[in-house]
Parts: sequence; structure tokens; C-alpha cells
Amino acid sequence: MSAEEVNTVRLVARLNELGAVGQLQEGGRTRLALTDEERQGRDLIVTWLHEAGAEVVIDKVGNIFGVLTGTSSGAPVMTGSHIDTVRRAGHLDGCYGVVAGIEVLDTIYRSGTKPDRSLVVAAFTNEEGVRFMPDLMGSRVLTKEMGLAEALQTVSTDGALFCNELERIGYAGTVEPWSLLPASYVELHIEQGPVLDSREVPIGIVEGVQGYTWWEVSISGQANHAGTTPMDLRFDAAVAAFELISEISRFVKAEGRTTVVTTGTISLHPNAINVIAGRANFTLDIRDANDASRVEAEIELRRLLNNLTEIGFDFEIECIAKNHAVKFNENICASIESSVSELGINSLRMVSGASHDAQMLARVCPTAMIFVPSRNGVSHNPEEHTETENLALGAKVLMKTIRKMINSDS
Amino acid sequence: MSAEEVNTVRLVARLNELGAVGQLQEGGRTRLALTDEERQGRDLIVTWLHEAGAEVVIDKVGNIFGVLTGTSSGAPVMTGSHIDTVRRAGHLDGCYGVVAGIEVLDTIYRSGTKPDRSLVVAAFTNEEGVRFMPDLMGSRVLTKEMGLAEALQTVSTDGALFCNELERIGYAGTVEPWSLLPASYVELHIEQGPVLDSREVPIGIVEGVQGYTWWEVSISGQANHAGTTPMDLRFDAAVAAFELISEISRFVKAEGRTTVVTTGTISLHPNAINVIAGRANFTLDIRDANDASRVEAEIELRRLLNNLTEIGFDFEIECIAKNHAVKFNENICASIESSVSELGINSLRMVSGASHDAQMLARVCPTAMIFVPSRNGVSHNPEEHTETENLALGAKVLMKTIRKMINSDS
Repeated sequence: MSAEEVNTVRLVARLNELGAVGQLQEGGRTRLALTDEERQGRDLIVTWLHEAGAEVVIDKVGNIFGVLTGTSSGAPVMTGSHIDTVRRAGHLDGCYGVVAGIEVLDTIYRSGTKPDRSLVVAAFTNEEGVRFMPDLMGSRVLTKEMGLAEALQTVSTDGALFCNELERIGYAGTVEPWSLLPASYVELHIEQGPVLDSREVPIGIVEGVQGYTWWEVSISGQANHAGTTPMDLRFDAAVAAFELISEISRFVKAEGRTTVVTTGTISLHPNAINVIAGRANFTLDIRDANDASRVEAEIELRRLLNNLTEIGFDFEIECIAKNHAVKFNENICASIESSVSELGINSLRMVSGASHDAQMLARVCPTAMIFVPSRNGVSHNPEEHTETENLALGAKVLMKTIRKMINSDS
Repeated sequence: MSAEEVNTVRLVARLNELGAVGQLQEGGRTRLALTDEERQGRDLIVTWLHEAGAEVVIDKVGNIFGVLTGTSSGAPVMTGSHIDTVRRAGHLDGCYGVVAGIEVLDTIYRSGTKPDRSLVVAAFTNEEGVRFMPDLMGSRVLTKEMGLAEALQTVSTDGALFCNELERIGYAGTVEPWSLLPASYVELHIEQGPVLDSREVPIGIVEGVQGYTWWEVSISGQANHAGTTPMDLRFDAAVAAFELISEISRFVKAEGRTTVVTTGTISLHPNAINVIAGRANFTLDIRDANDASRVEAEIELRRLLNNLTEIGFDFEIECIAKNHAVKFNENICASIESSVSELGINSLRMVSGASHDAQMLARVCPTAMIFVPSRNGVSHNPEEHTETENLALGAKVLMKTIRKMINSDS
């Protein structure tokens, strides 16, 4: 291994070591934000950052920063992710980006040449949003999408106050979160979806994050006896809902469309085997990297609902959540692409269907992400897995990309 | 009104009087089998039977029979229905057939000419099966489809023993239920469905009762993230179920098909807005007057399920209830038809989608039913309603039909 290369053997060993913190008898690990388990994980990160030659800074919301100071006084280049987990998690989600970032910093430090720009490796607080809501809290506060005071006063699902927990685990820093606001940001992460794995492509160049809307829809027909009501005299709310959902699914599957639509919950009323449903309540999760395309699907949904009223049904629809799409920076994407080319491997331009700290950073600086494949698209699950070879490739692409970022004026 | 005509004014008045027994403040009435309320209803029936000139016989399962003895010693002609109700019921379901039967008996008694065959008006015990299971209990025991001892030992939903309740309300008779096994049976009933009302036809000639099967189906796909999983890489059990149910509905709607299919219950797993369903569990209620036609729909269902396995889904299917179709007697149907013709009114040949005591009687003697319209098809509901004119027409058709039955040798 030359001094220019990241230590991928240690990368994998550290992922396993970190993955052992909060490990469960039944498999997987639980390391919710600001718990004792997460503190153990944080301690490992701080240790490894020190070993890599970084100065460690903790901010007021508990974000951990490992800083390798550059020769210029400009804003730093930042990489990173998070080490808090969901319940019964895998060992890669978030951790991979932080641990690989440490390896990159270590490599640059060992090269002996100070970078032009400072390099910061971040481990953001409470990305998952399981114990404290909302998610992405550390990066939200850093980018002033959420007030610091509001974050500190958040109460956990177990009734604890965020600031007390932060104090208790010893990670209540004194630095303002935005004092290290970067000039640019790149995040390495597992895909958490099946695209790269199914197409056998080792690297995804992430151009943005999908926007989404969540809808609650209620279709009303007429409850009636399942035996005495002929098919042509029914106002079956269940069949109306089933056909509508099937149609909107076919609509987004059409050539050229990128929208995904999901009905994950449905309930029928009165919910009896021998009674035609008088009402069907269901949800629709609609996502697209392009807000305009998503809106097209929503217009189609409205059209299908309006058609139902013409044949005797009623409906209600309510939007219960909405997030606009995030577009990442093309220069960084192109830089990742050239890193991939230098390594002579395949890559795919794609968008993220999951949320990441990068989408907060994208609001304040040029940002992009690098994905590696998740086996079968599985994540948030002990079965989460990425081949060692691909973990190494992702770290190499991050290395090459960051080297360009810290030595450029952009 | 000639002595040959049924007293339709009194018919309607008695339906209202009986309907007041068990009346609820919020509308409707509850007269569950073998309760104090039902005893009050029984007492009215017994009184009216006596007034009509009938001898009243109570059998061991509590069936009430009003007997008008004929000149021959042959088995009687029987008509009737039931006076127990569901919770918050209308005033016509069952009661109409019993009270109209009493008017017919009264008319024949007043005519002064003894019929050839004896005429029996029956009020069967526990047709609804709400307080004691199964339904149709009185007619089940009469036709030996259920053992008398088994019926008497049945425990109600409120923990009471059938025989104790029968004794308590004073309707534990001494006669064997099958001692009055009829030569033929005709039952007058409201349709409890929308067909006659929607087609504005006053009389339905019921040729049989639908057979039905109840199925529990489970389709398994793969649960996945609603954002990160493109449409073409999904195994969405919800959409697979929705499309299958839509398809089987379209199949039975095809020209010439009489089958009805209902999905009244469905649940998705894990049942989260942003998770593609890994499993969909739902029921199918499939009915047809012709068992062979019903089986065609079931074969189509199997074909659709098998198609799913070819594209990566799994399924399980279980039949949880099955009842064969009942075919009524064509001679009685033709006799009803000629009665309708004599009155110069319209009628429709049809099948019953609901269960009736007649389907038990059909196992032991020639049987048919006469339906009158239910407004909007509504039944088992305080809104249950049939126009007085149609209640009168139904009683007249019953009168004419029974007159032929009691004076024929068939």
C-alpha cells in the first residue's frame, strides 16, 4: 500500500469494531442518539480522529468534527455522515461514511503535504431521528434549518431532554455548529436501495435526493350485503381504491417516468368478510428527484379521484407531509465521475430515495454523494451488507474526489 | 274487501305493532332469539294465530306453528319465516313472512271451506344466529340438519344455555320438531338486496339461494423502502393484491356471469406509509346460485395467483367457509308465476343472496320463495322499508300460491 492509498483493511476492521457497540443478542445493534451505546461509538470516532492526526472539535449540538488544517484560510472541505442507528440496525448505514472519511484524512495527513483547504470529517448528531425528532438534527442545526435552542430542548421518546443527554454522555461542546460551515461537502454512503446491486455497478454518483409527498386518501361508496348486491349495482369502495392504486402505479411505470408511488397502508370499513366496503382509507407515498414529475403523478391521482365522483363515489384527500427534491452540485458529481474513470470502474448517475445529512448541507454549499451497493437493497436491518471490495472502491473514490476538492479553488 | 282477500291493512298494522317490540331509543329494534323482547313478539304471534282460527303448536326447539287442519291426512303445506332480529333491525325481515302467513291462514279460515291439505304457518326459532350460533337453528333442527340435543345445549354470546332460555320464556314445547314435516314450503320475504327496487319490479320469484365460499388469501412479496426502490425492482404485495382483486372483479362482471366477488377485509404488512408491503392478507367472498359458475371464478382466482408466482411472489390460500347453492322447486316457482300473472303485475326470476329458513326446508320438501323489493336494497338496518303497495302485493301472491298448494295433490 502506497502512502497515497486509503487503508481499506483497517476501514473494514473499524466498521466491525464500531458495529460491535450496542450489539444485540438477536443480531444487529441499537445505538440510538445520545445513549450510552452511542457515547461508546463517539469515543471510538474521537480516538480514531486523533490517531489520524486531526484536531477534534465538538459543537453545541454534539456534532463531532475532525479537522486537518490546510494552508489557506478559506472554508473547509467537509465529508462525513453519522454513527447513530435505528433499532436493530446494520453496521454500515452512516458509519461507513464517517470511518472512510477518517481513513481519507489519515491518508492525507500521512502524505506529509498540507492540503490547500482544511479538511473536516463530521459525525453528525441524531441523523436517524428515532429517539429524538426530527431526523438530520445535527446537520439541520449546522445549516440553520433548525434553531440550536429548539434542538437542545427536544424531548426523546423515553422522556429525556436533548441537552441533558448531551451533557450526560460528555458531548455538549462549546463551539457554534455553523463555525465550521464548509465550502463544499461530499458524503459516502451505502445505497440502501437495490439499484446498484441489481445492475452490478460498484459506484453511484448521487445527483440529488427525491422530493416526496405523503397523502391520506379516503374513498366512500356504499356498504352492502356481499350476497344480495349484484356486481353492477355496487359502489364498492375497496375495488375503487384497488383499481385507482393499480392505475396510478401503471402511470408512473410508463417509459421515461422516474416517480415511485407506494401504498403501504389501507383499511376497509366496516371491515367484514361479507360486507361490501363502504369506505377505503389508504396512503400514497409519491417520490421523484424532479418535483415537476412528482406533481404530474399527483395531477393524475386527482384526475382518477375525480373520475370516481362521476360514477357515484366520494373522496377526501389530504397531504400530510411534503419535502421538495434536492439537487446536488454538478461540479462535484463530475469530479466523482472523473475519480471513477481514473479507477477504471463502472458508475451510475442516480438519485437518493432516502434522506441524508447531505441534503441539509446542499442548502449552504456545493454538495454531492457517493453510493456503494447494498446487497438486495436491504438496510435498517442486521442483513445490511456491502462487499468488502465495494467498500474499498467507495473509499478510493472518496479519496480521489476529496484530494481534488481540497486542492482546488472552487 | 271480499272474504277471499287478505287483510292488507291489518297486515301493515301488525307489522308495526310487532316492530314496536324491542324498539330502541336511537331507532330500530333489537329482538334477539329467546330474550324477553322476543318472547313478547312470540306472544303476539300466538295471539294472532289463535284469532285467525289456527291451533298453535310449539315444538321442542321453540318453533311456533299455527295449524289449520285440512280434510286429507297428508303432510301439510307450510309457509312462514322468523320473528327474531339482528341488533338495531328493521321491522320487515322475517316478520313480514310470518304475519302475511297468518293473514293467509285467516282468510282461508274465514272462507268457511276446509282446505284439502292442512296449512301451517311457522315462526322458526333463531333464524338470525346473532345470540345463538348457528343461524337457521329452528329450521335446521326441523329438517334434522342439526341435532335437537345439540341445539338445546347451545350457549349464547351472553353465556346462557339455549334450553334454559327457551324454558324461561315459556316456549319449550313438547312436540318433536319434525312431526309437522311439510309436503311443500313457500316463504314470503323482503329481498334485502337492490335488484327489485332498482328495476321497479314488485315481485321476485326466488329459484334458489346462492352458494358461497369464503377465502383467506395471503400474497407475499418483499418489503422495501418506498423511496429507494424503483418501480421495476419492486415485489409490492399490495399492488399485486389490488390488481388481482380488480381482475377477478372484472372476470365476474363479464357478460353472462352471475357470480359476485367481494373483498371486505385487507391488511398490509408491515403497514407503514413509507414501506412497500411485503405481505397483503385479504378475504374473498365468492357467491353464485350455480356452484359450477362459482367454481369457474375460483379457478380464475387460482390462475391469477399462480401467475403471481411466475413473477416472484408467493401466496397462500385457505377456504374458511363453504355452502353449496340451493335450487328451489320449479313447480312452486311456476305456481308463483301464474299467481303473479293473475294479478297482472311484473315479476322477476332471481336467486337469494341471503340465507333463509327456506334453504333448510328445500332439503326435505319442494320449496320456493317470494320476494318483495327492499328500498335501496337496505336490510338489517332501521332504514329497512318496503312500500305498503308492495307488501300487499306480496301477500296476495302468497295467498294465491298457497291456495293452489293446499288444494292440489302435489
